Amino acid sequence: MTQARSGGPAVVALGGGHGLAATLSALRQVTSRLTGIVTVADNGGSSGRLRTELGILPPGDLRMALAALCGDDDWGRAWAEVLQHRFGGDGPLAGHPVGNLLLAALWDMERDQVAGLDLVAELLGAQGRVLPMANVPLDIEADVDFGPPERIELVRGQAEVATTPGRILGVRLDPGDPPACPQAVAALETADWVTIGPGSWFTSVMPTLLVPQLRQALLRTPARRCLVLNLVAQPGETEHLTPEEHLDVLAAHAPDLRLDVVVADTSAARDVDALARGAARLGARLVTADVRAAGQSGQHDPAALAEVFATTFAPASPAQA
Amino acid sequence: MTQARSGGPAVVALGGGHGLAATLSALRQVTSRLTGIVTVADNGGSSGRLRTELGILPPGDLRMALAALCGDDDWGRAWAEVLQHRFGGDGPLAGHPVGNLLLAALWDMERDQVAGLDLVAELLGAQGRVLPMANVPLDIEADVDFGPPERIELVRGQAEVATTPGRILGVRLDPGDPPACPQAVAALETADWVTIGPGSWFTSVMPTLLVPQLRQALLRTPARRCLVLNLVAQPGETEHLTPEEHLDVLAAHAPDLRLDVVVADTSAARDVDALARGAARLGARLVTADVRAAGQSGQHDPAALAEVFATTFAPASPAQA
Repeated sequence: MTQARSGGPAVVALGGGHGLAATLSALRQVTSRLTGIVTVADNGGSSGRLRTELGILPPGDLRMALAALCGDDDWGRAWAEVLQHRFGGDGPLAGHPVGNLLLAALWDMERDQVAGLDLVAELLGAQGRVLPMANVPLDIEADVDFGPPERIELVRGQAEVATTPGRILGVRLDPGDPPACPQAVAALETADWVTIGPGSWFTSVMPTLLVPQLRQALLRTPARRCLVLNLVAQPGETEHLTPEEHLDVLAAHAPDLRLDVVVADTSAARDVDALARGAARLGARLVTADVRAAGQSGQHDPAALAEVFATTFAPASPAQA
Repeated sequence: MTQARSGGPAVVALGGGHGLAATLSALRQVTSRLTGIVTVADNGGSSGRLRTELGILPPGDLRMALAALCGDDDWGRAWAEVLQHRFGGDGPLAGHPVGNLLLAALWDMERDQVAGLDLVAELLGAQGRVLPMANVPLDIEADVDFGPPERIELVRGQAEVATTPGRILGVRLDPGDPPACPQAVAALETADWVTIGPGSWFTSVMPTLLVPQLRQALLRTPARRCLVLNLVAQPGETEHLTPEEHLDVLAAHAPDLRLDVVVADTSAARDVDALARGAARLGARLVTADVRAAGQSGQHDPAALAEVFATTFAPASPAQA
């Protein structure tokens, strides 16, 4: 299962950052009917600077998702490498990946975010489509406990929340009811499977559940829903959370959401029974597998994750019974 | 003569800026075996900023030449428009065309200037190739007379020379013996025709004659040489020069260079006999034609210029007799 399949189930992947890129790298081996829906709340680094300078969506996670879907040939790989390349030095361009600047320019020209993303996808020969979860740039706000004793304060901004020394209790979007990307809503409604995660739990994954129109589509879609848990706790964001507590966080942010499958790495699921019970509370069965990349403790191995997705998505799979 | 021809003579066009872009727009209608060789001495605007920040060749004139050669289909035209798009506003990106940033990034990645230019040409489906005249960024120095009475001073920098209020006597390159782009030398040596100009006479056209290896190739090539004169005098640079004095400037900067054809717009050649005598002194016959774009007094009409090139290059043309 390392070759791309033509066709396959219609899959929508929700998330952001490296986690979504890993999921898309795996999913492209399972299906060519693929849509990534990306959190657009980043306010740090190149994306934050472009947001401030040009008033556009933060392009970084969208660029990374597009690169993950690049065509499986010299042309696609070469352009993915170009779009991922960051300017060095310490001048005005330093730190900007080329793809961020290209998306920014296309949005500046087209005034249509999806048309710009589709043109870059075409450039890459991308296997699938990448869409923003909302049509406006968002900010993340978190209630953070800086105790003990309990001392809850508001932290604002994805970069600030992701690096807070406090314990994150929950996140919200600002604005709270942003316009969802209509094409993203439509993709959810016609999907066979939806994947959620892995990724920065509070700042990349939870936000995809908080755009009202998108959440409604996620609740009413006939698609089945597969959650992929993280391999490691993230310093700051989730270092205090067990895998089963990650599920509790999800339930707290999207109380009506039912899942079909929860995927956990064998080594990360220390208390398998507790995790299976947590999954069952969300309506899901637990699938454990060795999906950790060799030598990179925090990253999923795309081929191993693809195997899990292929088995999970297979209509006739005994695992579906 | 508005359709691109497959094949045709091997033509090399020397110059820079809008003048070279106009020539290439015309030549692409006459041949698909086309190489633009571009002055790389710009130190103003976006190119100047990128040169300073990243130590690279000034990309602007190269980008403009590439865009002029874009594929004659929706894809090529769309990407040419993207590469020509400049960021607005007043932030760190303001004024940078996308194509300048893309070339800068490719050079940063590849460390091979020609490979980067060829990749952008491939992106555009370009009809031909664009090369720098030298492999290092250059500066232009000019002796400028700020009199009367005669007061000659050194002015340094393409942007400064192009806008000097004084009378330019001559230009030099710094460094004076830069390494020519080997592929540019090879293109000159195997060309059927070489075009020179139009364009900013002292800051775009003359510099292409001043790189020693390139000039030697231009002198020894069996190709025939066609000079295209400007339509209007440029404020600052050439406002004091008649068309025939433009030829004198060329002879002063490249004393051994012989030409075959000098092309002048009918309305710009006020004293046709004097201009014909000036051309003859360089070994050339004068061709006058209506090549001015309607309503744009300073720009050549690509279709009209293409007609002149087609007639001039035709082996069996009576005009060649």
